[in-house]
Amino acid sequence: MNFCSACGATVNLRIPQGDTALRHVCDACGEIHYQNPKLVVGAVAVWGERVLLCRRAIEPRHGKWTLPAGFMENKETTAEAAARETREEACAEIAIDAPFSMINIPHISQVHLFYRARLLRPEFAAGAESLDVALFDEADIPWEALAFRSVSLTLQHFFDDRRAAQFGFHSADLDISAPLTGNGT
Amino acid sequence: MNFCSACGATVNLRIPQGDTALRHVCDACGEIHYQNPKLVVGAVAVWGERVLLCRRAIEPRHGKWTLPAGFMENKETTAEAAARETREEACAEIAIDAPFSMINIPHISQVHLFYRARLLRPEFAAGAESLDVALFDEADIPWEALAFRSVSLTLQHFFDDRRAAQFGFHSADLDISAPLTGNGT
Repeated sequence: MNFCSACGATVNLRIPQGDTALRHVCDACGEIHYQNPKLVVGAVAVWGERVLLCRRAIEPRHGKWTLPAGFMENKETTAEAAARETREEACAEIAIDAPFSMINIPHISQVHLFYRARLLRPEFAAGAESLDVALFDEADIPWEALAFRSVSLTLQHFFDDRRAAQFGFHSADLDISAPLTGNGT
Repeated sequence: MNFCSACGATVNLRIPQGDTALRHVCDACGEIHYQNPKLVVGAVAVWGERVLLCRRAIEPRHGKWTLPAGFMENKETTAEAAARETREEACAEIAIDAPFSMINIPHISQVHLFYRARLLRPEFAAGAESLDVALFDEADIPWEALAFRSVSLTLQHFFDDRRAAQFGFHSADLDISAPLTGNGT
């Protein structure tokens, strides 16, 4: 960030009075430009026993499989974000069941949130950001070709909970020092 | 947003190619300036049976009582944010137990997340953003003087779950059309 988005003056990086962190501050108009973590929201959407996965047509992790998910937009709820992303990436309509996992990835300032959900109909197709979309039985999940650790962790919890016939809410923090798959998310 | 924070040129509000939403786009340098919801994270921190509340020294809702909470910062986890906000607003140290409530407030593009937590010691004081900090028994909670609906909803769930001796994870959406307390958050 170099310029103030409000007035166009050059911004300075300093700790504002009464604050404890460095911020981009505009000394021309007084605006403080805060930067905050982003929510990435998605769904573990099932049809019967099988889970819907998308093969990514975009970077990062082009060609790898993922749960439908993406950046939450202003003015929507987390459940609406999960349904929208599933619609955009997998051309599928879902009913949301419950929040299922929340995974912090502090080194990239993201929080990933996944819902449990059900496909309303067994109809899906590759959206613009997907190369392919398919339903997978647990035994066929391409664990080595999953795009993100938040996705593999969520799927592991999902199958564990389903076996135990008791779905919980799972939270975890991913550490950059932990073994990476791909770009660490 | 009027100017590109990267190059200082005037931004235009339009739908970028391949997108579906209006964005602030810089046609000089190509930057797309996305705006996303913010996470507000806090804690239901107890000492024995009593819950820690802060009386706000800042707007909105100056003078009203709230759970310690605030905007999550980059490079921290949600649990770290809850502990930091409790330290800043109540000068108190906590141990985090588990995520407890997640409340969407789409009309202001915020998601509020509260953890269950325990004070490490019965020591607290008003931080810079608080007029007063105190521990409350359930019977003494100032329900009519709480700052935000996300706080009253979280406290209701907390006492209900504690009576049932079974803490869950609760999610809800606050609707601007619902009866407001204060500014609707």
